[in-house]
Amino acid sequence: MTDTDKIVTAAVIVIGNEILSGRTQDINLNFLAKGLNEVGVTLREARFIPDIEATIIGTVNEMRAKFDYVFTTGGIGPTHDDITSECIAKAFGVKWTVHPDAHKHFLSFYQPSELNEARMRMATTPEGATLVYNPVSRAPGFRMENVYVFAGIPRVMQGMFDTVKGELRGGKPTMSRTVGCALAEGILAKSLGEIQSRYDDIEIGSYPIMRRGAFGVNLVLRGRDEARLTQATADVAQMVRDLGDTPIEE
Amino acid sequence: MTDTDKIVTAAVIVIGNEILSGRTQDINLNFLAKGLNEVGVTLREARFIPDIEATIIGTVNEMRAKFDYVFTTGGIGPTHDDITSECIAKAFGVKWTVHPDAHKHFLSFYQPSELNEARMRMATTPEGATLVYNPVSRAPGFRMENVYVFAGIPRVMQGMFDTVKGELRGGKPTMSRTVGCALAEGILAKSLGEIQSRYDDIEIGSYPIMRRGAFGVNLVLRGRDEARLTQATADVAQMVRDLGDTPIEE
Repeated sequence: MTDTDKIVTAAVIVIGNEILSGRTQDINLNFLAKGLNEVGVTLREARFIPDIEATIIGTVNEMRAKFDYVFTTGGIGPTHDDITSECIAKAFGVKWTVHPDAHKHFLSFYQPSELNEARMRMATTPEGATLVYNPVSRAPGFRMENVYVFAGIPRVMQGMFDTVKGELRGGKPTMSRTVGCALAEGILAKSLGEIQSRYDDIEIGSYPIMRRGAFGVNLVLRGRDEARLTQATADVAQMVRDLGDTPIEE
Repeated sequence: MTDTDKIVTAAVIVIGNEILSGRTQDINLNFLAKGLNEVGVTLREARFIPDIEATIIGTVNEMRAKFDYVFTTGGIGPTHDDITSECIAKAFGVKWTVHPDAHKHFLSFYQPSELNEARMRMATTPEGATLVYNPVSRAPGFRMENVYVFAGIPRVMQGMFDTVKGELRGGKPTMSRTVGCALAEGILAKSLGEIQSRYDDIEIGSYPIMRRGAFGVNLVLRGRDEARLTQATADVAQMVRDLGDTPIEE
């Protein structure tokens, strides 16, 4: 087993009442899932939680013990409902204090008189945090050990992730192949299960879709060994032919 | 305190590797969040988990003890990766067994010879489950006590939710008002925090947005008492005027 065989895991915590109330459709999870996969990090769980202190602290502490990386989005602005940063300090049991680099950074944008209490909140981090700048907004995110704390606005969050992407140490990325067909799941389930049982290193998923008004299925194969993935994909395509349909390989 | 003052809570569990791998953008959470709010049920947490037995069982048992309602989506089809239904039976400590009504329902669509092992899986539920039909697909979801088990395909899931919506016993629905403005959050944060401190029954959120290429803010007020909500909204609009901008009330 080489270093790159190790599976490196992550969790995402989406913080904010606006998602749970249905007001906002989250798109941060999907962006992070794809980006993490590109650097060989496997996203194992995501939690969407409200702006409640005890919930944020408890969730962060549970996840950072369980996974290699944790990414939070939301709640680091200057208003009263932005409590993530303070909660991270409490989760780590450290002071929440003005970060000298963030203060300096803000002084390059604002006159000292414009740096009111609210804006200084955004220059305040858990003691020992490393700042994460982004090209869209002035306010930085930060990292505490294995926990990355990002903004909730998608463009800002994406900028922060792109800033740190190169420092993440992942394993071998997972590749995927898709075989589409017009067969019903109930027809192919048995043969597909037999193929799955021969490939314990390949994860085969079956996803019904609507195609030209009729139900079809996308069979998605995911794995980290390209040769095995190619072989399993060929077996699935042959199965579709054996059942009288034409496989559509993407 | 009348019956309708009680806050009725729910959690959503989105089950499926395809969301965590980034292949699929989830839209079920947002649909459920809105639908639950309409019937006065407050969505408190959502978890996105992979198709792993121990994780599904553990998450379902934690959530059903903690919240009034739990809704799961995904993993109830006929293929090897559809393990939700069996896991729910294990979570409740009951047998996983052919449901006579589901069997009868399938016999109205399929010849007995077409009812192979895979299709019979979809007629199999935890013992004691109540079926949840839907107008899109033949396979029903089901309810076990306070846990509703739905399909992952959005149109099918939506059909199942619409089927049960009328039976959910919620409290008073939460109403929301939005006041938009072009002020920076750092400018309005202090006054907004002061308004929030006067209304402990109204939740005031501040959400930066891009409006005509510039950052603006949507101030969202949510509450269950209409008169209080109207008063708080007027206070927020007046605050925007006092800070030299024109409030945009939606």
